[in-house]
Amino acid sequence: MKTAAHSSDPLLALRDALRRFAAERDWGQFHSPKNLAVAVSVEAAELLEHFQWLTDEQSAALSPETRAGVSEELADVLLYLIRLADRLDLDLIACATEKLRRNAEKYPVEKARGNAKKYTQL
Amino acid sequence: MKTAAHSSDPLLALRDALRRFAAERDWGQFHSPKNLAVAVSVEAAELLEHFQWLTDEQSAALSPETRAGVSEELADVLLYLIRLADRLDLDLIACATEKLRRNAEKYPVEKARGNAKKYTQL
Amino acid sequence: MKTAAHSSDPLLALRDALRRFAAERDWGQFHSPKNLAVAVSVEAAELLEHFQWLTDEQSAALSPETRAGVSEELADVLLYLIRLADRLDLDLIACATEKLRRNAEKYPVEKARGNAKKYTQL
Amino acid sequence: MKTAAHSSDPLLALRDALRRFAAERDWGQFHSPKNLAVAVSVEAAELLEHFQWLTDEQSAALSPETRAGVSEELADVLLYLIRLADRLDLDLIACATEKLRRNAEKYPVEKARGNAKKYTQL
Repeated sequence: MKTAAHSSDPLLALRDALRRFAAERDWGQFHSPKNLAVAVSVEAAELLEHFQWLTDEQSAALSPETRAGVSEELADVLLYLIRLADRLDLDLIACATEKLRRNAEKYPVEKARGNAKKYTQL
Repeated sequence: MKTAAHSSDPLLALRDALRRFAAERDWGQFHSPKNLAVAVSVEAAELLEHFQWLTDEQSAALSPETRAGVSEELADVLLYLIRLADRLDLDLIACATEKLRRNAEKYPVEKARGNAKKYTQL
Repeated sequence: MKTAAHSSDPLLALRDALRRFAAERDWGQFHSPKNLAVAVSVEAAELLEHFQWLTDEQSAALSPETRAGVSEELADVLLYLIRLADRLDLDLIACATEKLRRNAEKYPVEKARGNAKKYTQL
Repeated sequence: MKTAAHSSDPLLALRDALRRFAAERDWGQFHSPKNLAVAVSVEAAELLEHFQWLTDEQSAALSPETRAGVSEELADVLLYLIRLADRLDLDLIACATEKLRRNAEKYPVEKARGNAKKYTQL
């Protein structure tokens, strides 16, 4: 059974729950990849809004209220990201693993150490 | 052994890989939660850029080149999201599961069906 | 008198009003160019949020309520943009005029007609 | 003559130039308000990208190269903002002037001084 098979993979469990959530509400019509990409971006900005006027130090010591708000926006970004990947039939974990491998090539340790320059400027 | 313990949870495996990646490059100094929230937002916009001038229909039938670009940007958003959650000691999956539960309350099936209005306007 | 001299240039009048606004509230300390760039991005996403689930057609026929919300967010983006340019001592109009000239070179009429491809792909 | 009439208002001159630019390239078909709002957001993120890993201090002392890049992205945000306002038949300067007036009410000097809290938390 599919659900049982996914019980050990939390991202697949969320993907399936999001599918049910959208199907029950007939929201598939709104969930074009384009609209979902817009949603990821809007939620990412709502996440950023919490940090907008904080110093780096303050951003590492959030009040409980801000922390709760941040955790909701983090969740929204992830949920739309999972839904977008599902609509495009892309495997998020495989994409991320491959990207991390490429980043390791683009930013070799000896060149990148202590340096935030973009790889094109290294 | 830690890595072995995480082998069954791909998000934790990525979290650990990102920790090593940053540590090896001494990038922890740049990874304040504020900067990482900026990075999530910038990558989300790079993701969105691929869909910018497409129709909804076109966005569901991407060319192989666009699809490859999209998968890289999806990956970047997820990687920074994992890193930000790690810095804030938040559990991404737990946040998303809780948020989905709250969304089900905010958007009851009977009211939300076929309707993209924000819950405050339902 | 400075204000009088600017009365014919509305962007300079807004720039001066924003300077006074920030000075009266002692907000200069928060208005680093980095923070203002974050603010532009956050407000741009709030603008986008109004259009998130609309079709292109719906986006061209906004309800009075949405239109009012859109006009506020348009304003916020412009205000932070003016403030950021002021902090960097950049002339917004000169930057935009120059950019439009460069765009005309990058997208020659004969190649770009009816085509939304990025200039690097023309 | 229209152009002559606008010569004293730089935003109207840019609006007219953008109308011609889009008409010559038959780009009106892509310029729905929704797509233009996406474009504002994407360009705002490209602007932000320049500041992503800088400290506040570094963001106030940009290298000539970064400054040139920033001025191009500032320009792009403004150009799409002007185009979006035009498509919605909104007067950018009037919107911004009105918003600034409302902000002065929301953030009274005595309460807001030295305080970056959102007005709902004042």
